[in-house]
Amino acid sequence: MKEHVKVKIGLLGLGVVGSVLVSLIRQNVQRIEHETGISVEIEKVFVRSAGKKRDIDLNGLSLTTNISEIIEDPDIDIICECMGGSGYKETFEFLQTAMKNKKHVILSSKKALAEYAEQLLFTAYINRVHLKYDATVGGGIPIAKVLENAFKGDKLLRISGIFNATSNFIYTKMSSDNQSFGEALKIAQEKGYAENDPADDVDGIDSTNKLIILSLFGLNKIIRRSDLHPESFTRIEIRDMHYANELGYRIKPVATISGKNDTVDYYVGPYLVPSIHIIANTFNNNNTIVLEGEHCGELAFYGEGAGSFPTASAMFDDLVNILSAEKVQNEFPFTKVDNINITNSPAKYYWRFTVKNETGILASITRVLAMYNINIERLIQKNAVEGGIELVLLTSNVNSKISVIEALGLSGIKCQAVIPYL
Amino acid sequence: MKEHVKVKIGLLGLGVVGSVLVSLIRQNVQRIEHETGISVEIEKVFVRSAGKKRDIDLNGLSLTTNISEIIEDPDIDIICECMGGSGYKETFEFLQTAMKNKKHVILSSKKALAEYAEQLLFTAYINRVHLKYDATVGGGIPIAKVLENAFKGDKLLRISGIFNATSNFIYTKMSSDNQSFGEALKIAQEKGYAENDPADDVDGIDSTNKLIILSLFGLNKIIRRSDLHPESFTRIEIRDMHYANELGYRIKPVATISGKNDTVDYYVGPYLVPSIHIIANTFNNNNTIVLEGEHCGELAFYGEGAGSFPTASAMFDDLVNILSAEKVQNEFPFTKVDNINITNSPAKYYWRFTVKNETGILASITRVLAMYNINIERLIQKNAVEGGIELVLLTSNVNSKISVIEALGLSGIKCQAVIPYL
Repeated sequence: MKEHVKVKIGLLGLGVVGSVLVSLIRQNVQRIEHETGISVEIEKVFVRSAGKKRDIDLNGLSLTTNISEIIEDPDIDIICECMGGSGYKETFEFLQTAMKNKKHVILSSKKALAEYAEQLLFTAYINRVHLKYDATVGGGIPIAKVLENAFKGDKLLRISGIFNATSNFIYTKMSSDNQSFGEALKIAQEKGYAENDPADDVDGIDSTNKLIILSLFGLNKIIRRSDLHPESFTRIEIRDMHYANELGYRIKPVATISGKNDTVDYYVGPYLVPSIHIIANTFNNNNTIVLEGEHCGELAFYGEGAGSFPTASAMFDDLVNILSAEKVQNEFPFTKVDNINITNSPAKYYWRFTVKNETGILASITRVLAMYNINIERLIQKNAVEGGIELVLLTSNVNSKISVIEALGLSGIKCQAVIPYL
Repeated sequence: MKEHVKVKIGLLGLGVVGSVLVSLIRQNVQRIEHETGISVEIEKVFVRSAGKKRDIDLNGLSLTTNISEIIEDPDIDIICECMGGSGYKETFEFLQTAMKNKKHVILSSKKALAEYAEQLLFTAYINRVHLKYDATVGGGIPIAKVLENAFKGDKLLRISGIFNATSNFIYTKMSSDNQSFGEALKIAQEKGYAENDPADDVDGIDSTNKLIILSLFGLNKIIRRSDLHPESFTRIEIRDMHYANELGYRIKPVATISGKNDTVDYYVGPYLVPSIHIIANTFNNNNTIVLEGEHCGELAFYGEGAGSFPTASAMFDDLVNILSAEKVQNEFPFTKVDNINITNSPAKYYWRFTVKNETGILASITRVLAMYNINIERLIQKNAVEGGIELVLLTSNVNSKISVIEALGLSGIKCQAVIPYL
């Protein structure tokens, strides 16, 4: 935006993130002008309730409850959206209108972007405006900066890791304090790590949204939210964590996507990770993002789950980058959503069965697995439990876990747990 | 360099890194032209031996053994230096001459930069040329990209981690396979992780050089190499690793620097790190870089030690960034080297003593520590060994470990190990 000398910002939302962003802009007005030659000014702020008491000096801020006064105002150049996750459809519509009105957009609503990535990116492209969304992923981890600026001579093959600090906190508690998922969730809620309605976190929806956004940055692919089906993180028992530990693994709430040509392989759910692996050593409310490039090998980025400061700080970085940019990129580097095949096929699984202590049971299991050409890597008979004895298996070469579960069911054998392993 | 339509590159060195860089440039000529409007060309390559057989197609490359033909050639715009660590003083002089001749420089020699940072940066500044050095740190970890592009609204307080993959490999082997430092070093050399002369790696020199370079990026401070005194990583015995484990720690080859106003606190050497910490869980030939910001909390970046591809890839990114840059930054953001006070003061230490099994010995130790107002956090009496019994202590509030070691010596008590802990 080098041709400008004055840039006016419209802010949507003045919650915690919005307030921190206002402070950052206020503190850095002179530095921005010195570095870019542009004087920035917050022209107007959209709030739902004008009279609400706020932890910020409102002096010099012009508030409005009418969003059109911002997204239709020809004087406003850049929109900073800090509206949070609720009402994300409406957020999307506001931002689309703003871009049609030739405003650059800095977005923080992960849900709005993950659900409407194609429309938002395309609207930005045809209206030749910047759409920046570094704040939507990574929490404190500046992963967007890494993906935007590095790997220019490399090709990213896989993005994986622990993307949901709430679920990781719960798993850590389960494993270290022998608490059930429900008990650990309650503690997470008391500590403010989990929402009252934790579904987005514990059902893998939040992790899936982050994968979609990281795929935009890293794989240049737009993936439709409705094509992705996470496994819930809730279906884990403490006994499986202990058995995994004995086998040299830790169960972690993992998200992974790998891209090759027009196919992506996706999995979000519980995962057994070798205990020496960086993902297995990410505890409490921390996240780890692992990148695998054709040449660069495995890189990992580790940090605390999102907070309001990192989000606002990423938006501020976006703002400086828009101001410093010479012109809007004249490219649409993304593979179209309809051309992507989604597969979901971990090939290696941990299984736990409770079987009657009868001769022939083990033979039934091995027969079914042999039928599907599945290799048994390890088999451990655990102690007697109510209803029989426990068997734990690690297998590889599994093509369809569903078929196997059904076939075992026909032999009267119920799988208590089926979790992929790395 | 937007005003150019054609940019000529001079390459210094055609070893493994240089060859990969040539391939990357060759593969991406069209993409660069498409993205920046600039056509790039490798004009000339400096090599020490023109006839040497090389693993690269020399077709189209003009080799010279006379470096003046490159650094004095008015047609060359950008110098890419891939000369390796040896002869770094000469490398510095070549690059200084090149910048005086108004050439932009992409540097990969860590040693040249760490030793001559002030001169190189200042030469670039007064000649208004780009000096890029992302390739000098991080190995596969694109840490320079993170530090250049993020944290614009935050302030970095501390940079720490494991920066030397060789030493970390040795410590991992010692801990897991009960090998001595020397034995593990030998394996590292066999695997190609350590040089024949491993001093730079195992004496903390390489880690110190990386800290100096990361301080340029992250703390905007130029620190003089001669002001920094690493502790050698070699002075570690397996027994200390085991005792550390029992206490909930792992001994790791750590580097840390924190900056506050004009003071920096520096330490490179062995360190006891809590076993849950990300640094303690970095094994084999991997590195971890931990950043601590005023607001962002603790972030960690994890990846394999340097290889030739990551180095060449970072240089290629630097090249694209120079080509895309509108103009050379007209700033010298660094605090001058003479205005920085260096302190080196971990306050918490692990101690191991072998003492005669006599009454009064423990009293002597505690008396000396009390004299220096040192708190004993934990004290463990280990089994009898030759010459007496072993005592292990964790202490805090240590102002000068040297004075304490001397005072203990006056009581006839010799410290077998004194290592800071986190």
